[in-house]
Amino acid sequence: MSVAKAGEFGLIARITARLPAGQSTLLGPGDDAAVVRAADGRVVASTDVLVEGRHFRRDWCTAQDVGHRAAAANLADIAAMGATPTALLVGLCVPTNLDARWAEELSDGLGAEAALVGAAVVGGDMSGSPTLTIAVTALGDLGGLAPVVRTGARPGDVVAMCGRLGYAAAGYTVLSRGFRTPKVLVDAYRRPEVPYSAGPEAAGLGATAMIDVSDGLLADIGHVAKGSGVAVDLRRDAFEVPRQMRDAAHALGVDPYTWVLAGGEDHALVATFPPGLALPPRWRVVGVVREGSGVTVDGRPFRGPTGWQHF
Amino acid sequence: MSVAKAGEFGLIARITARLPAGQSTLLGPGDDAAVVRAADGRVVASTDVLVEGRHFRRDWCTAQDVGHRAAAANLADIAAMGATPTALLVGLCVPTNLDARWAEELSDGLGAEAALVGAAVVGGDMSGSPTLTIAVTALGDLGGLAPVVRTGARPGDVVAMCGRLGYAAAGYTVLSRGFRTPKVLVDAYRRPEVPYSAGPEAAGLGATAMIDVSDGLLADIGHVAKGSGVAVDLRRDAFEVPRQMRDAAHALGVDPYTWVLAGGEDHALVATFPPGLALPPRWRVVGVVREGSGVTVDGRPFRGPTGWQHF
Repeated sequence: MSVAKAGEFGLIARITARLPAGQSTLLGPGDDAAVVRAADGRVVASTDVLVEGRHFRRDWCTAQDVGHRAAAANLADIAAMGATPTALLVGLCVPTNLDARWAEELSDGLGAEAALVGAAVVGGDMSGSPTLTIAVTALGDLGGLAPVVRTGARPGDVVAMCGRLGYAAAGYTVLSRGFRTPKVLVDAYRRPEVPYSAGPEAAGLGATAMIDVSDGLLADIGHVAKGSGVAVDLRRDAFEVPRQMRDAAHALGVDPYTWVLAGGEDHALVATFPPGLALPPRWRVVGVVREGSGVTVDGRPFRGPTGWQHF
Repeated sequence: MSVAKAGEFGLIARITARLPAGQSTLLGPGDDAAVVRAADGRVVASTDVLVEGRHFRRDWCTAQDVGHRAAAANLADIAAMGATPTALLVGLCVPTNLDARWAEELSDGLGAEAALVGAAVVGGDMSGSPTLTIAVTALGDLGGLAPVVRTGARPGDVVAMCGRLGYAAAGYTVLSRGFRTPKVLVDAYRRPEVPYSAGPEAAGLGATAMIDVSDGLLADIGHVAKGSGVAVDLRRDAFEVPRQMRDAAHALGVDPYTWVLAGGEDHALVATFPPGLALPPRWRVVGVVREGSGVTVDGRPFRGPTGWQHF
């Protein structure tokens, strides 16, 4: 059944009936607005838009995959402030001939990804549009800690990261060349594995700055360097290139470090910490903060693409 | 200069430089997420999407007008919960050949409308898209009061409204017939005048249910009736048809009550109150809540269109 036939209110009812509730949801979908717990007295909020053909393709990803990816991109932004996500709101623009099931399964993916961190879809809006577009807003709670911003890195800090790098970019390249394997890379593109809990962990450890890698490590740590007025030097040998990524890179004629250093969408968290701190093992030290400006790898500029172009 | 030439980060920098700060903004645009005061310990949140050609036309409205309308639609949802808006987030999808000035002026309109209630644009995202699309999320604070939901109306309650009805619908009809006057109607379509402060006022007065009129009074009070399991009867003579609206209706061959009772987008607030309450003068009693179901006007079903179709 098309979304036009299901009708706005019918489709919304079908979608909301499938959505799990969250522990911070005080009033969920169905009213003018939702009400979400914000125990801290502050709320963290971020919005991301995904446009078909630009941020996702329906022939590469199931509707559930797109839901997972859309939620992950937003929930990672909340984690990168050091906060715990509490809620998602979803603005959905759909061609009127879209199968209503696609919208329902998208919501399933959004709800399932949110549930990984105890959050839930609490509201949204829907409209017809020639262009399938998903606008997601995520809310989060700081749990009494100061937000970890991009502007706090200081010379002498160490740069550490948690999560995966290059997997989603490799999966994207694989898919764009018409392949469907290696599965680990393609799956990483379809449903990123974001280390959400590492965000509040870093805040608790005293991280001076943090960002999630959505546009590529060099571009994103570049935002931290610029915002903080410092230079960042990364150590190339700190990054591991797993075997399947190395093999795929070889087969496709790609330098795998392009994926690792310039590929986005894995939503790893990268933070700067005061020197001498004992970091939990999932945080890997990959560089240092210095006086100056710009980002280097082993002291030199990295040659190759450095991030995602949005236009 | 096109948005493609300005570039995502350049355009975002130009836009955020023009945005006023709000009294609840703890961390504004420029980081992974914003931080907004939520003193109440709860946050109210709502999302609306506007799609070009469906919700707005660039030849009917300036970019600033579109910003005002987009913000108003969302801020009204917050007011309709009895809350005071604190922040907006904006997901903007733009054709790459759009003049960057249009995006800047849109943001000016969003910021100016938000400033009317002390709120501000605190964050957003931007992407290229074939379809100009604006996704706005509004946040708000309940100030210690319970949210006023759609499900609380009880038989015996009075139905009262605050704000204008039919103006925006009349302006829409005027514009769609190729006219540009009467100015009061066209301006009402371009920049709705929303009685934001009446929302928290109604909550403080003990409103049992509330909604903002975005799809048309009959449709929206119908949501309250259905959600509350009650019937609503409106009195036709409680609604005033101003002279300019009556004249325009006559000239265009339209029943002005179609605009008043079924026209949306003025974002009047309609609430139900326990009987016998002394309401401030800006609240006009327009009907009663009864046992049963459905919405009637003077005891009979209203003939004519009853609201906006989203697909």
